[in-house]
Amino acid sequence: MAEFNVDPYADLYARRASGMTASEVRALFSVASRPDVVSLAGGMPYVQALPTEHVLEVVESVLVERADVALQYGGGQGSPALRERLAMLMAEEDTSADPEDLVVTTGAQQALDLVGKVLIDPGDVVAVEAPAYVGALSAFSVYEPRFLQVDLDDDGMIVEQLEEALLRGERPKFVYTVPNFHNPAGVTMSRARREQLVALCREARIPIVEDNPYGMLRFDGEPLPTLRSLDRQNVIYLGTVSKVFSPGVRVGWAVAEPGVLQRLVLAKEAADLCGSQFTMLVTERYFGGELWRRNLGALVQTYRSRRDAMLTALEEHFPSDASWTKPSGGFFVWVTLPDYFDTPALLAAAVDRKVAYVPGTGFYPDGRGRQQMRLCFSYPTEERIAEGIRRLGELLADEEELFRSLSGA
Amino acid sequence: MAEFNVDPYADLYARRASGMTASEVRALFSVASRPDVVSLAGGMPYVQALPTEHVLEVVESVLVERADVALQYGGGQGSPALRERLAMLMAEEDTSADPEDLVVTTGAQQALDLVGKVLIDPGDVVAVEAPAYVGALSAFSVYEPRFLQVDLDDDGMIVEQLEEALLRGERPKFVYTVPNFHNPAGVTMSRARREQLVALCREARIPIVEDNPYGMLRFDGEPLPTLRSLDRQNVIYLGTVSKVFSPGVRVGWAVAEPGVLQRLVLAKEAADLCGSQFTMLVTERYFGGELWRRNLGALVQTYRSRRDAMLTALEEHFPSDASWTKPSGGFFVWVTLPDYFDTPALLAAAVDRKVAYVPGTGFYPDGRGRQQMRLCFSYPTEERIAEGIRRLGELLADEEELFRSLSGA
Repeated sequence: MAEFNVDPYADLYARRASGMTASEVRALFSVASRPDVVSLAGGMPYVQALPTEHVLEVVESVLVERADVALQYGGGQGSPALRERLAMLMAEEDTSADPEDLVVTTGAQQALDLVGKVLIDPGDVVAVEAPAYVGALSAFSVYEPRFLQVDLDDDGMIVEQLEEALLRGERPKFVYTVPNFHNPAGVTMSRARREQLVALCREARIPIVEDNPYGMLRFDGEPLPTLRSLDRQNVIYLGTVSKVFSPGVRVGWAVAEPGVLQRLVLAKEAADLCGSQFTMLVTERYFGGELWRRNLGALVQTYRSRRDAMLTALEEHFPSDASWTKPSGGFFVWVTLPDYFDTPALLAAAVDRKVAYVPGTGFYPDGRGRQQMRLCFSYPTEERIAEGIRRLGELLADEEELFRSLSGA
Repeated sequence: MAEFNVDPYADLYARRASGMTASEVRALFSVASRPDVVSLAGGMPYVQALPTEHVLEVVESVLVERADVALQYGGGQGSPALRERLAMLMAEEDTSADPEDLVVTTGAQQALDLVGKVLIDPGDVVAVEAPAYVGALSAFSVYEPRFLQVDLDDDGMIVEQLEEALLRGERPKFVYTVPNFHNPAGVTMSRARREQLVALCREARIPIVEDNPYGMLRFDGEPLPTLRSLDRQNVIYLGTVSKVFSPGVRVGWAVAEPGVLQRLVLAKEAADLCGSQFTMLVTERYFGGELWRRNLGALVQTYRSRRDAMLTALEEHFPSDASWTKPSGGFFVWVTLPDYFDTPALLAAAVDRKVAYVPGTGFYPDGRGRQQMRLCFSYPTEERIAEGIRRLGELLADEEELFRSLSGA
């Protein structure tokens, strides 16, 4: 008989926490971090590309000149100087932002949490893409919304679907989208869809939450306008330096109109008082120089080659009846397999063969995604990517053969 | 006619955010940060006492040896090595903790937010001291509890009051307390009260949340056992390095039994994915050496002298019918004035006279505290403290005179 450890607090948890349990996938990921496993799972930036001596120089200058500020508490909104730098990063994507309308957060993930905290009452509807960024689903879920899922295609969110839902009487509190190089789908919202979405939401008085972590990691094609640049009053914009500098500094931000912003700042202070003055000063100085452009340029080159390596390997090793997206930037390729595959069930076998991916189910709140997987090309080398895709392709071929023999095909 | 800026989102906020508005006190504090104002308000540690060259050495070694880890994402719980160091800090206060039962948070403030998130449903009762740490009130308030306030005296929380409330049928989800060198009250819970509280809560199956930021800053008297050391199963322990090292690294933690801990970790990941690997590595190394003990010893000496300077100045300059606590550690003195004073109303006049304090009202959810003020001695020099208290004393004397002339006394 199995022995059970009774949790003495079992009847004390808040309703929002009753569903908080670790998934099986989680346990597999800790195995997948072994060096002999090619991980195409986690979405880690390739921070090894950062010149350490440059970062060290920045850090030393902060401590030598500003130790009393770096090691102290700061204001909840983040310093004006850093907010100016982050507004400057937005200007790189032709998006204007007043540093007064910006709050610095612990990565963009905290901005997602604060947006949920400030806007979602239990039972409220939140419109998200299908599939949607899993971190946004976790952050929002704490506030107990009902998710309205809007499908994606190669041009991003299918805005007609959202429009139909509104006509049916759905009334989302906000629409959450990752328009550029979508996580997990790898697709980018077309210009026509952007204009359509912005017009629809403005008309319906539904704010848009635009999450743009990968916008500056474009490999090819022309940049498209951010949603915020199309309608600053109705778009809450989320940014982060995690992908263009380092996730280790935990610096992200939100830009919103004054009423929302004030509440985001107060919610931020209630959540953790303030961010790290130390890493915020480091970030401010890093983007104060010009070397960050060179570092970012090199990073984009690296990611482009890795994306190419992944697409080439997929062509070579994956079943002919599988399909996948062709991202023009960012970190991810989204694969759709034939119906008889089950990506959550297959993960253990993949890890046995020393390759890991993220099953599609995590990206849908409604249990879909069993034929999908997210593959990340940002972290492993081209050789490792090719080898990982080869291993996965072999597994899929073996599974396919097994399926055909069992079904008598 | 005044012009109003209409907030277009006014009807979209979550119920929990409707009350989030900036206070008038807040506006005054930005004035109070001018260098000519002696601020006895904010609870800032005196980080200038940290030897910068020592911190620089630690930071350099982290970047030179571990840049790829420092600049990357990490796990939500914090690294095992850091968790071991933090457990070691608890051992300094004779409190054992398994690093497996510990989650690293963005300061102890985030631990408060996560505890609220995991345990409080709207309408739940949370027992807090009266007065209570304002940051805990803000963190918990987001989850819409009703506060049950239990008065303090010089021996800390009056546990009999809590017992009577339970007999009346109150059923708090948890009891929140700062037993050592209370913020804002400056008092320390006696050994007898600790034993009484732990026994009462164990019997009633009500978990205790023990917040201990100042425990290692004792100036005189014998250390008392932490509540966690008296009942590890029923006490959720919160710690921070903000007061013994630096708030700029934003490293705090919570220790809890496995069921609660797992939910705290999942809530942490939903809130911000993970802390800064960089500042966590810096903290791990800082406490890995032995110099931190010397730095802390020097800091305790400094704070002791500043406490003495404040108590001496209060005796000299404050009205004879005012009373105040005599802290044996920590940062704060809590002053109670005669009934005709109104500390929130008086703050603007104090700032005019170039001295600032925190009015007592912020520390009570029920509007009490108009005769109280919190004075912080950790940051200004002894001379500045004496001068600040002199300015405040003058203001109080003038107010008293005005009151007596108006009331014909």
